[in-house]
Amino acid sequence: MGYKPGAPHVWPIHAQLDSSMTYCVGILLDDGLVLISDTRTNAGLDNIASFRKLHIVENPGERVLALASSGNLSITQSVLSMLTEGVPGTGTPDAPMTLSSVPSMFEAAQLVGKAVREAHRVDAESFKEHGMGFEFSMLLGGQIKGRRLRLFMIYSAGNFIEATSDTAFLQIGEHKYGKPILDRAIRPETDIYDALKIGLISMDSTMRSNLAVGLPLDVMIVRRDVLKIELEYRIESDDSYFNDLRRRWSEALSATHLAIPKPPYKTPV
Amino acid sequence: MGYKPGAPHVWPIHAQLDSSMTYCVGILLDDGLVLISDTRTNAGLDNIASFRKLHIVENPGERVLALASSGNLSITQSVLSMLTEGVPGTGTPDAPMTLSSVPSMFEAAQLVGKAVREAHRVDAESFKEHGMGFEFSMLLGGQIKGRRLRLFMIYSAGNFIEATSDTAFLQIGEHKYGKPILDRAIRPETDIYDALKIGLISMDSTMRSNLAVGLPLDVMIVRRDVLKIELEYRIESDDSYFNDLRRRWSEALSATHLAIPKPPYKTPV
Repeated sequence: MGYKPGAPHVWPIHAQLDSSMTYCVGILLDDGLVLISDTRTNAGLDNIASFRKLHIVENPGERVLALASSGNLSITQSVLSMLTEGVPGTGTPDAPMTLSSVPSMFEAAQLVGKAVREAHRVDAESFKEHGMGFEFSMLLGGQIKGRRLRLFMIYSAGNFIEATSDTAFLQIGEHKYGKPILDRAIRPETDIYDALKIGLISMDSTMRSNLAVGLPLDVMIVRRDVLKIELEYRIESDDSYFNDLRRRWSEALSATHLAIPKPPYKTPV
Repeated sequence: MGYKPGAPHVWPIHAQLDSSMTYCVGILLDDGLVLISDTRTNAGLDNIASFRKLHIVENPGERVLALASSGNLSITQSVLSMLTEGVPGTGTPDAPMTLSSVPSMFEAAQLVGKAVREAHRVDAESFKEHGMGFEFSMLLGGQIKGRRLRLFMIYSAGNFIEATSDTAFLQIGEHKYGKPILDRAIRPETDIYDALKIGLISMDSTMRSNLAVGLPLDVMIVRRDVLKIELEYRIESDDSYFNDLRRRWSEALSATHLAIPKPPYKTPV
């Protein structure tokens, strides 16, 4: 059927962004916010295609919000549509709240939650009849003028959690393969481009262990208190920096485990 | 309540070896077999204790079989009991088959499968009434005289798969955090003590990301065609080699990602 990136509106209604086929990570640092997402999805049983999972709402100098999504594609698109055009039952009847009008990041997270609950109200029953789960999760990060830079993860039930200095990163989708390096290396004081690099290593580990997570990758950086996107970039398969990072990381891991002495263990007598 | 290792018979019937609280890896190499398992489990809601998940059936010179288990503790113990005393409906009525009498590793894997199905027949209905899943998986590796060294993974449905030269390792329980390093570093020709070391790095990554997987660890090595245990060892929290490995690995990962240049990306204009 030939789905093309940039033409997601031709996707069939049952298209799935299965959570095992997505990996997105958001990192909240003293310096700012990093978001990385893969772009691969499947529609139906055998169509693997790439689809943008990273979305930006920007009014430079006033607000910058970024979203990364995992889960059923029709839910994601429905939620994004509400967040852009107005979530039913919010704001005023003439001007329901959108991510462009919401006054704070906390209320933005609530707004995503409300949109998810609305999507659930409309679709969940029918999904259940077709044996489909209501799968959805989203990272929402950003800053609104006069407010703090924040990063949230919103679940399919519409509830959400926030990144803190104890947990400087949040992940959605296929998160386990890439978590150890983040656990080891990400601190709030990590330099923002180092964090991007560590996030890309995490993505590399995930792609090696789950072939359903794949290139291209979308990356984004928002520096704290700057209120506009500093970096928005797509990493394609011929990206020389990313390929060099993957090779260096792989070689260094080999060299590292070879440099560790072999276990001296003997069976106790 | 004070559960002690070595006294698993005092465990309450509902004790869980939740699969997210276990990590075992089996590695099949040209040199032989490596098995590593953690020992932590919980009984009821708040009792965390250590419990042996690695079991050995050995008749030196004739056979050596090793099992590592994940899942509900009562199922595991019931399966182990049948494998030791005889699985109903196998062998002869007077002498049902055990892991000490089964003639080949393939039949040993089938025997585990039959024992699991018998445990399911006895317990699954009652488990369901109490809202408990029938959670079980097992690694079975070893060699019987005149036969090949083999490694199997048996599922709760009693079916099983085997490690091959394409997939030289099998994991049960909380397997994702520790998979990337195995994917990168384990090959059939890897030296057996290097493989043990890589397995311990995999275990370290898992323990850092999931606190429910923990020390002590049990490790075991069987060299191909030797038909007895070469190494059987318990790694406790004061193990100087393992602590050194963890420190070296952590420091090397930090040094490695610091040595990789920062991403040179700019937003395309």
